[in-house]
Amino acid sequence: MTKLKFDITMSLDGFIAGPNPGPDAPLGEGGERLHQWVFGLKSFEQRHGRGGGKTNRDDEIAEESLADTGAVIMGRGMFGGGPGPWHESWEGWWGEEPPFGMPVFVLTHHAREPLVMKGGTTFTFVTEGIESALEQARAAAVGQGVAIAGGGRVVQQYLDAGLVDEFQVHVAPVLLGDGVRLFDQPGADQIELEVVRVVESEAVTHLRYSVVRVAPSAGSGATVEDPN
Amino acid sequence: MTKLKFDITMSLDGFIAGPNPGPDAPLGEGGERLHQWVFGLKSFEQRHGRGGGKTNRDDEIAEESLADTGAVIMGRGMFGGGPGPWHESWEGWWGEEPPFGMPVFVLTHHAREPLVMKGGTTFTFVTEGIESALEQARAAAVGQGVAIAGGGRVVQQYLDAGLVDEFQVHVAPVLLGDGVRLFDQPGADQIELEVVRVVESEAVTHLRYSVVRVAPSAGSGATVEDPN
Repeated sequence: MTKLKFDITMSLDGFIAGPNPGPDAPLGEGGERLHQWVFGLKSFEQRHGRGGGKTNRDDEIAEESLADTGAVIMGRGMFGGGPGPWHESWEGWWGEEPPFGMPVFVLTHHAREPLVMKGGTTFTFVTEGIESALEQARAAAVGQGVAIAGGGRVVQQYLDAGLVDEFQVHVAPVLLGDGVRLFDQPGADQIELEVVRVVESEAVTHLRYSVVRVAPSAGSGATVEDPN
Repeated sequence: MTKLKFDITMSLDGFIAGPNPGPDAPLGEGGERLHQWVFGLKSFEQRHGRGGGKTNRDDEIAEESLADTGAVIMGRGMFGGGPGPWHESWEGWWGEEPPFGMPVFVLTHHAREPLVMKGGTTFTFVTEGIESALEQARAAAVGQGVAIAGGGRVVQQYLDAGLVDEFQVHVAPVLLGDGVRLFDQPGADQIELEVVRVVESEAVTHLRYSVVRVAPSAGSGATVEDPN
């Protein structure tokens, strides 16, 4: 069975986006401060179709998280915005050549035909919940890992359901004070973690954990609920 | 000028105590899971009047945080419980020989004579707010550092006021899901951090930061407010 994982940058005070995220500021106010460590790395430049960029330990780690991934799962907000039906013409935040280059499964309430983008990215819209999305993503990943791209509620749902195998939190040396929390769900105390690896740099601390035991809390794990 | 610092254990999801802390469970429900890394270390055993205990990198770090400290500041909750006037006979949670062995300044609204305990600990009650407590603690520390022992609101007030020089967060590989957050104040985005050192072990990750720039947010820094 391929691994389900996520890789996410969090401020020291627990936020993965600043307050008031929206079309003009998908990372929320001040949210770009979280991702300073990524900007200018070789892997980042490459992913965005540019040459050059820094190579260092941070770059290796950014690279590594993409290397063993064959499919991506994301919430509807991360694909292209909030609730309500879409126009079929709306192709999301990511432009005509999204930086995934692999199958992406979008959790939503609104059925829609798959979107085939340039560069190998296809968006498939899943209305049957997180377990169905995972099953489809595993099939598409052909032996490679499946990555949850976010947002926080999607990550939490997979964690609560006991479906996540491992994850990496990149702790940015930043306090946002307010915004969207990565971990914000009471059921989380049923999850046991093990530290797998810690890598430090001046810009960020990479903490990798595996989930070693899960006893889904009542009313969480079994629900197949769409986050958007 | 002596440094103001704090050293605190936090779950990966940001909590320094579980839900419903109280006289029977000062760490809150499940809060003892945070401190697994400390139990059984040589420095911990010593501090509690016992011999033996493990010596390892975690022990060195626990030791180190006490080594350069000449005085402690804490909130009233950490001394001995919630709001309302005390009985003068109430000597707090810490027993007749508290494990500090140095002057401790307790932030409170309720004036009270200092308490001299066994083993070098004195509790001095400060009703004039955080800056006064810091001034008194600095004088008492005689060139050594001043440590904020907690709780979270006291830590936050000193951070917001731009008075903290450096701090260490021991990130426990634990999700509590609910409880008392270390960082829970919108003003925090005015604080810039720098990673000073990262030390890992299987049990915990020690992240040390220095505060490099502070622009106190409107209405926070200048207030001299008691947390209890």
